[in-house]
Amino acid sequence: MSKLPLIGITMGDPAGIGPEIILKSLSETLNTNIRSRAHLIVIGSYAVMLETLRSLQTQYTLKKVSTLRNDYEARDIIYVLDPLQNPLPKTVPGQLAKENGHAQIVFIREAVKFAMNGTLDAIVTAPITKSAMYMAGYNYPGHTELLAELTGCTSSGTDSGMMIIGGPLRIMFVTTHVPLSSLSSLIKYRDVMKAIRLAHKSSQQYFGIPTPRIGVAGLNPHAGENGQFGKEEIEVITPAIERSQATGINCEGPFPADTIFQQAAKGKFDIVVAMYHDQGLIPLKLLSFGKAVNITVGLPILRTSVDHGTAYDIAGQGIANSESITEAITTTIKILNYQSSLSTK
Amino acid sequence: MSKLPLIGITMGDPAGIGPEIILKSLSETLNTNIRSRAHLIVIGSYAVMLETLRSLQTQYTLKKVSTLRNDYEARDIIYVLDPLQNPLPKTVPGQLAKENGHAQIVFIREAVKFAMNGTLDAIVTAPITKSAMYMAGYNYPGHTELLAELTGCTSSGTDSGMMIIGGPLRIMFVTTHVPLSSLSSLIKYRDVMKAIRLAHKSSQQYFGIPTPRIGVAGLNPHAGENGQFGKEEIEVITPAIERSQATGINCEGPFPADTIFQQAAKGKFDIVVAMYHDQGLIPLKLLSFGKAVNITVGLPILRTSVDHGTAYDIAGQGIANSESITEAITTTIKILNYQSSLSTK
Repeated sequence: MSKLPLIGITMGDPAGIGPEIILKSLSETLNTNIRSRAHLIVIGSYAVMLETLRSLQTQYTLKKVSTLRNDYEARDIIYVLDPLQNPLPKTVPGQLAKENGHAQIVFIREAVKFAMNGTLDAIVTAPITKSAMYMAGYNYPGHTELLAELTGCTSSGTDSGMMIIGGPLRIMFVTTHVPLSSLSSLIKYRDVMKAIRLAHKSSQQYFGIPTPRIGVAGLNPHAGENGQFGKEEIEVITPAIERSQATGINCEGPFPADTIFQQAAKGKFDIVVAMYHDQGLIPLKLLSFGKAVNITVGLPILRTSVDHGTAYDIAGQGIANSESITEAITTTIKILNYQSSLSTK
Repeated sequence: MSKLPLIGITMGDPAGIGPEIILKSLSETLNTNIRSRAHLIVIGSYAVMLETLRSLQTQYTLKKVSTLRNDYEARDIIYVLDPLQNPLPKTVPGQLAKENGHAQIVFIREAVKFAMNGTLDAIVTAPITKSAMYMAGYNYPGHTELLAELTGCTSSGTDSGMMIIGGPLRIMFVTTHVPLSSLSSLIKYRDVMKAIRLAHKSSQQYFGIPTPRIGVAGLNPHAGENGQFGKEEIEVITPAIERSQATGINCEGPFPADTIFQQAAKGKFDIVVAMYHDQGLIPLKLLSFGKAVNITVGLPILRTSVDHGTAYDIAGQGIANSESITEAITTTIKILNYQSSLSTK
């Protein structure tokens, strides 16, 4: 049997629910086959992990490691790589802190470094708090853009983007965290083409679908109804679909957003290209029941994530739900297994 | 027992699936308690109904009536009021025709006339084709606006709007069939207030909920996340919610659109105010499984409708699904029963 893959789990904002859901997930998966299929290491604050362990009263041993190797055999030990130069001031769950805004970036940087040099096979990220990040002087709309920069994907010609999968749906997004009023100017021919291409390539690469069937949503009600309620379908989306078809991609649309996800859920499409955040996230969260997984596609590394935020309102109370991070870990293992089956063929 | 209510069912576009779903629905409900709870009369082309009856090979007798009374006792007879001055040219299913564009308006006008004078207790409408309506020289965005005009509700101070109910959800819309790019300028303080007020009043009036719990969706991703992804929540939606609360309405928000419908489906809200068409229709169609019902609220008459279009692609083939119109009829009867229980108290 080949060596088990090593997956790094970044803590995210220490004041959010990240430390709690990581501990819960690792604890719940202790006796499942997850732990026999991959080694998992937390990249975050050792002190915060220790504190969380105490408050959750979980029967676990934490072990601080200073380097990454691939021999974390003891399944009842949680290995933590703590890259912080200076210890954090006492973390108050649910409270914004500049230091945490900085720390969450340091964790991701460290994880990306080890993923880029091949020590880590994949990264699973717990949620970050954007406001804390801004307080610490970083200005990224989200994880996706930060990862694109850290992996050198912001240089022109390299594409990355957000895919979310959950329940019966896989969704690739043309835009993510932008005001609705700016959508019309942001949805351009080349962006729709890029999302279709990423949907196609990543469905092959991650899920082993030889010819993915891609459904593309419209932007306007009834997909514009022949231009009566908006022209983007005629001027931008349809040309991008036709051009993509000409390159051999199996895509169709634009379909009205209020029916395409039903059809995809019934199996008509392998993946849907959504024009904007809520268009894709509304059906996805409804059908995935808290178990959606975010995948940044097009990066040179594999990165998955939970589909929720830091949930400051419930942080530190021991009531956060760890299903999404467990699902992210499981999905990551499946993708790694699929890819390793290819490379050993 | 009091006299049964009389419900008029308008045929919609004769070239669409309207005649077929009406016949199927009446046929399927023949042995259910629907027919013992209300009298139903079709307002449409007698010739088209006859032709549809033949093609569906349904065991029914059609009877053309020239006036409306409330004594349509024979349940195996379909009564048709045909208000057309001139017979239609031969209708080709799935083909646009100016005459049908005119006819669908005549049916609605006739129905509204009888509803306004109290002969009809409610109207259920089969779908119309907007392009056919435009060909015939009418220019309404949809049924809702046409009905508002016919009932005198376009004069200032009288509010009407679109509510759709289905599965576990009731949704009131701030905007309907408009381009996404125009949303930001269309969603104004008074429109959000109006939708909240209509959600409140109609939940009381139609569903008998004394203090409806109303959830209001945001417009932008994460409901703007404190203005980072759009300002409408701060500048327009929150002030409208606060003002509505001050008038005694139990409303909350704005909540992120990708979680509010889940919460509503679980019972946290009696009704959700959605900012735009797809925001509300995506979750509604996913959870109602083809059985959603459209209600034009705020009119002096009760009007419900199917949640789908004329489906030209399958018109005349006998394969259209009549569940939505049956659901519209059932919902109408429930509302009429609730209202009649009030008036006899």
